[in-house]
Amino acid sequence: MSDRIRVVVDAMGGDNAPGELVKGAVQAVLDHENIHVILTGRKDAIERELANYTYPKERVDIVECSEVIETAEPPVNAIRTKKDSSLVVGLRLVKKGEADAIVSAGNSGAVLVGGQAIIGRIKGIERPALAPVIPTADGFSLLIDCGANVDARASHLVQFAQMGSIYMEQVLGVKNPRVGIVNIGAEEEKGNALVKETFPLLKACPGINFIGSVEARDIPSGVCDVIVCEAFVGNVILKLYEGVGFTLIRMVKQSLMKNLKTKIGAALIQSSLKETLKSFDGSEYGGAPLLGLNGLVVKTHGSSKAREVETSIYQCELFKKQNINEIIRENLIENNEKGV
Amino acid sequence: MSDRIRVVVDAMGGDNAPGELVKGAVQAVLDHENIHVILTGRKDAIERELANYTYPKERVDIVECSEVIETAEPPVNAIRTKKDSSLVVGLRLVKKGEADAIVSAGNSGAVLVGGQAIIGRIKGIERPALAPVIPTADGFSLLIDCGANVDARASHLVQFAQMGSIYMEQVLGVKNPRVGIVNIGAEEEKGNALVKETFPLLKACPGINFIGSVEARDIPSGVCDVIVCEAFVGNVILKLYEGVGFTLIRMVKQSLMKNLKTKIGAALIQSSLKETLKSFDGSEYGGAPLLGLNGLVVKTHGSSKAREVETSIYQCELFKKQNINEIIRENLIENNEKGV
Repeated sequence: MSDRIRVVVDAMGGDNAPGELVKGAVQAVLDHENIHVILTGRKDAIERELANYTYPKERVDIVECSEVIETAEPPVNAIRTKKDSSLVVGLRLVKKGEADAIVSAGNSGAVLVGGQAIIGRIKGIERPALAPVIPTADGFSLLIDCGANVDARASHLVQFAQMGSIYMEQVLGVKNPRVGIVNIGAEEEKGNALVKETFPLLKACPGINFIGSVEARDIPSGVCDVIVCEAFVGNVILKLYEGVGFTLIRMVKQSLMKNLKTKIGAALIQSSLKETLKSFDGSEYGGAPLLGLNGLVVKTHGSSKAREVETSIYQCELFKKQNINEIIRENLIENNEKGV
Repeated sequence: MSDRIRVVVDAMGGDNAPGELVKGAVQAVLDHENIHVILTGRKDAIERELANYTYPKERVDIVECSEVIETAEPPVNAIRTKKDSSLVVGLRLVKKGEADAIVSAGNSGAVLVGGQAIIGRIKGIERPALAPVIPTADGFSLLIDCGANVDARASHLVQFAQMGSIYMEQVLGVKNPRVGIVNIGAEEEKGNALVKETFPLLKACPGINFIGSVEARDIPSGVCDVIVCEAFVGNVILKLYEGVGFTLIRMVKQSLMKNLKTKIGAALIQSSLKETLKSFDGSEYGGAPLLGLNGLVVKTHGSSKAREVETSIYQCELFKKQNINEIIRENLIENNEKGV
């Protein structure tokens, strides 16, 4: 079948490995006929999980690996020394063209470092970018870059804007996505040296719908679709988003448990509140793609459950179906010809 | 009276000027006998507001100014050309020693630029820093710097940590405040060039309780008392905090208004929820001090009501009473002697 998509699932990565990883992989295979998964990791542990399900065996492979990269391990060293880890073996399969993509819930640093070092960048892409989806009041936005490489240059940010736009439109289905750069004010003359240098380049960049600066205050209301920033700032945004949300929701819940009256009130609002809070939870959108590589790496939360793993596999499917990397390459050539 | 404190209130700055500014000033004067306020702005408008109150007239002065700096005006130009604005005249009063401090809810950029340009820095302080208080799950933290000067150097951040610690301990009453630097991971080797350079300097800095890197995710839970970062990152944190909070609370409120059942539930939880959300609202802590100047500038929200203005005036009182600027100067001398 020509549209067959082969996705590696790093079965040993993340807090819920291998159980939820295997479960998500099986669900994806059951639901989409063209999906083929390759589970990397300890064969006995994976087989024990697989025994819980009925599934098309011809579309689920196991590649035995003897090692596991732990969450707290220093990434560079882990990638270098653990050659037979579920992550490194999985990345190699993508590199060799034996798989189209890999989904991992494991050590973030190792996924980012390994993706770059083993799979390698698309020719012309200066730096890959990690682009998680963050929830907004009325949908979601793509935050690019939240990766491992900080102190970016302006040319990197321009490529992030391009790759992010392509991904947002082709994979997440947002037409003509609005691109904004994170800044400390809406005026063009505001910003740090990097933003000031990047702003005119984005303004001149063909093929993107650049709307100018966005202030952090306006991100949660969904002011733009592709939020461009360098990785340090992106990391702060991503994590603060989680942190403020977590703290506020915990406080709201505590206020509901205060006394009998509030407990009765809580029972009445529970399902409506739950639904609302669910829409502000990013896990429905799958994991974060590492864009700009010769293949796709999707990093999901360390705490991912089967549903997020499954969604991430569909992300990989769309990514291949839509020829995202081909479009990124064409875009680069086009821009080079225009001298951008 | 030796402990008399003279505070300028920029009566024309902010969305609720002059009404709430005048009201807050009168309340402070009524409540604290040693406070003397100087209202700068249009005399007729101020007098019209003052006519609503009974207050000790000998402790409320008006200094007539013919101009007002608008919210959207480019700051540098505004400070340069509007010499008779309520802000510039107020800053001059502090510069000349005719007032100890100024509170303004006006144009943020103009307050920051004007504070530096007119009042001037404490000798030895390389850069002033704006340090708002942000709410946390169990209290509050000081976020330093959120000012107008981006692209800071490591030596600036060290001074921010010192000034922030002094302010947190002496004005906000947090003993031996824990100082953390915003980073993208907890490990010492992580971070961008600035953070990597600053980390060992903070570790070696005497007189502060440095606890290492803090991730943005942990800020809302109150992981440290003084959060050090350069202004671009600080601005992103401050505004995203507001943005996520605002969006989430709006969503929670919408979920409560969904149907009759949730509306009844909402009525039962209302007061408890309100109390909880109030504790996550920074306005009770007054405005943000601009630290490192020869005098105190306190910037309050543009939307400040009388209560925030009043609290900000008490902040100025404590600032003077505790001799904060003297302590900052002593600290600098001490560190210079130690070769820091």
